[in-house]
Amino acid sequence: MDMITLNITTESSIPLYLQLYTFLKIEIQEGRIPCDTKLPSKRKLSSYLKISQNTIQTAYDQLMEEGYIIPIERKGFFVCKLDLIASLKTEEITKSLDHGTHNPSIAYDFSYHGIDMETFPFSTWRKLTKDVLNEFDKELLKLGNSQGYGPLRSVIASYLHQSRGVPCTEQQIIISSGTELLFQILFQLFEEDCMYGIENPGYEKLNLLFTSNRARFKAINIDKNGMIPDEVINSGANILCITPAHQFPSGEIMPINRRIQLLNWANEASGRYLVEDDYDSEFKYSGKPIPALCGLDSNEKVIYMGSFSKALSPTLRISYMVLPHHLLVKYISKLSYLICPVPIIEQKVLYQFIQEGFFERHLNKMRTIYRKKRELLVNQIQQLHQNIIISGADAGLHLLLKVNNGMTEEQLVTSAFLKGVKVYGISKYYYNQENPIHFCSVLIGFAALSEDDITKAIKKLSEAWFSFSLNS
Amino acid sequence: MDMITLNITTESSIPLYLQLYTFLKIEIQEGRIPCDTKLPSKRKLSSYLKISQNTIQTAYDQLMEEGYIIPIERKGFFVCKLDLIASLKTEEITKSLDHGTHNPSIAYDFSYHGIDMETFPFSTWRKLTKDVLNEFDKELLKLGNSQGYGPLRSVIASYLHQSRGVPCTEQQIIISSGTELLFQILFQLFEEDCMYGIENPGYEKLNLLFTSNRARFKAINIDKNGMIPDEVINSGANILCITPAHQFPSGEIMPINRRIQLLNWANEASGRYLVEDDYDSEFKYSGKPIPALCGLDSNEKVIYMGSFSKALSPTLRISYMVLPHHLLVKYISKLSYLICPVPIIEQKVLYQFIQEGFFERHLNKMRTIYRKKRELLVNQIQQLHQNIIISGADAGLHLLLKVNNGMTEEQLVTSAFLKGVKVYGISKYYYNQENPIHFCSVLIGFAALSEDDITKAIKKLSEAWFSFSLNS
Repeated sequence: MDMITLNITTESSIPLYLQLYTFLKIEIQEGRIPCDTKLPSKRKLSSYLKISQNTIQTAYDQLMEEGYIIPIERKGFFVCKLDLIASLKTEEITKSLDHGTHNPSIAYDFSYHGIDMETFPFSTWRKLTKDVLNEFDKELLKLGNSQGYGPLRSVIASYLHQSRGVPCTEQQIIISSGTELLFQILFQLFEEDCMYGIENPGYEKLNLLFTSNRARFKAINIDKNGMIPDEVINSGANILCITPAHQFPSGEIMPINRRIQLLNWANEASGRYLVEDDYDSEFKYSGKPIPALCGLDSNEKVIYMGSFSKALSPTLRISYMVLPHHLLVKYISKLSYLICPVPIIEQKVLYQFIQEGFFERHLNKMRTIYRKKRELLVNQIQQLHQNIIISGADAGLHLLLKVNNGMTEEQLVTSAFLKGVKVYGISKYYYNQENPIHFCSVLIGFAALSEDDITKAIKKLSEAWFSFSLNS
Repeated sequence: MDMITLNITTESSIPLYLQLYTFLKIEIQEGRIPCDTKLPSKRKLSSYLKISQNTIQTAYDQLMEEGYIIPIERKGFFVCKLDLIASLKTEEITKSLDHGTHNPSIAYDFSYHGIDMETFPFSTWRKLTKDVLNEFDKELLKLGNSQGYGPLRSVIASYLHQSRGVPCTEQQIIISSGTELLFQILFQLFEEDCMYGIENPGYEKLNLLFTSNRARFKAINIDKNGMIPDEVINSGANILCITPAHQFPSGEIMPINRRIQLLNWANEASGRYLVEDDYDSEFKYSGKPIPALCGLDSNEKVIYMGSFSKALSPTLRISYMVLPHHLLVKYISKLSYLICPVPIIEQKVLYQFIQEGFFERHLNKMRTIYRKKRELLVNQIQQLHQNIIISGADAGLHLLLKVNNGMTEEQLVTSAFLKGVKVYGISKYYYNQENPIHFCSVLIGFAALSEDDITKAIKKLSEAWFSFSLNS
């Protein structure tokens, strides 16, 4: 290359040589100056950029030292060959990573991660944050309790007690930033040789989480009532991770007798536990709320996990678990070096939000909104076609559709996608794909879509699934 | 007991029997109703509480089912024996756990975790938070990129580039909630059989973290310049965790030749890495800032870790690491299911804080404040007694005192404690206590104490350490 153009400024606090060095380094790293390129001579570049030859020499020297360029006698400086695959590849992949940005061709996404986009209590949250950010509150700058902010744990305890029938004290509660981190605490708390059992089908992230943390686990098949007791026994698992309030993805509620069966299984041997993930239990639209399984446990066998991701927002990253006393003792002796990852400011805001009754009101509001969305969705689907079987209890923020139109799951997902609607094939929630089920079911979450969008989306699904000829 | 008194309310949404059941359960659990206590008869209690005998029967039945009480024929219901040790013990321990609350007998705590208590930019933070909490910003309610908020990663990248000489792109940055969580990502990223090397002495939490995560590690002795190359080679470690900018606890800066030695060691074999924890490098008070070791690395051998704990506040829980490209590719293919634990609201506030230049100004301000505190501290100590050797570079937020007054480390810490001053014995930072060093050094952090307190605290230390007779 005969010349390099960059904005080099003498005002900057960055030395000139460093500006030039960095510019060239990045240009080379990112392949914009390909290997074997000859860099301009010091003399030429110096007169072009109006900086001294010494400055350029220093920059070139540094690039040489770091192996970006190589001097060839009486020829000049040449760019060395770098393995760029990594950096290029990563840029592509990272770009595609942003869950926040959605595929533009998708007009309606039935994701089950979302929440209603219109009702987050921004003004209350703003006000409470303003109040909490108080110069005179030294607590805001001191690392607090490893388990989380005491008053927040205390209001969570009474909420769990009253709303979920979970008898616990604030001492038993550990606050963290998401189910993943709570499980990572359990991995540290329990012995290496213990075997976890996860629901099959189940939350697709669990097996990734368990695999990458080298936690031994078995995928245990479920029936309509939850994990199948015989399979539990045969699995050799001693810690079962279950979603009794609203199984993910089936959406079924675990009946009392299955709950008792699993509790009895846990009571039969020491070292057996149930991890109850109560992820969206706030939302039950008909009948009495069913207390958490944890409430039936009188032998310290259940670890209860909850979260504010569905009730408030997943982006707050606040979740918690309730440890039985004997595990709490173990936690305190072994893991209290951990620092609660949730910022104290946010914990105090949430505490105020619950304490002053905003949370209860917000929950009631959300229940109404989600009930209406669910009813609308169900009605529209029923009108759509008699060959669609809706399954999943009248609870939570998602349901399952079994579409008997001759399409496979893949065809259902693709045809919907082509109409700009994203639905989620059930097969991805199965750990072992050899599972002998003919898939023609999709999961749809409805929390994030407006009622208007739901109506439009279902029309699209109708076109995708029922206005076609199988021969085409 | 002849009667039970509790506030039972018919207004509550909680059924009467549940109120009674819960009350009794907790009373029994927490030992306030001791075992073998006879509960009041249904008849008596019903007339006393003005609720039906059936309600009481239901509550008693539930307590029986759960094994809290047992019926004895023609005698009544008696409380069963429960193993209360756990619950009681945990309450004691958890009470003692609250790092936020300090020992009242300690007037001056030379903790190295603290920060200056007067200068956190509350008003700016309030304003930025108010701006960020915007109803129309849908990003606030959607899970974003697994690595953290893009714009924040981008400003961190340019900060690292300009202030620490770390050449990186935002794609390489992973934001998390503290060094512990960053290491947990590395544990998942690297193979199970790799061997970590930690500095000895070093940050006391690392060995707890590595042990409870079952990561293999060796404690590698340091000399004045950092990890001793021969010991590195003999350790069999392939990933070294080091603090070159300001070794913890020695406070020394790793000279360039040792940096190059360690880099060369890493370059000699694949699978070797250096994890550079740059935890308090923002604070260098004299001479030129020394660029991060990472800046010398041209072979993707250094993982750089940084944090806002010292520069802003540990309670924000925001830290980050820079992954070399080939490790980033691995992260993306293996771990991008992870969710960034830092709330998006906080990430956006911090982004604005940096982007609008507040961070740079805050850092400059803190440098001046901490420089003054350190100078004051050093002067006071030098005046205090010629037998105290201060070590540690003119950087960071702590220094080491070697006190040659005939006291052992334990005596130094205890005598200070008795005067209401907390200092930290160096021995706790050694992994293997058999290390043959005669300890008479203590670590003191000065960030959280006011200049006035520093003066007073040093007076106390003078009394503790030099106004005594060894015979007494």
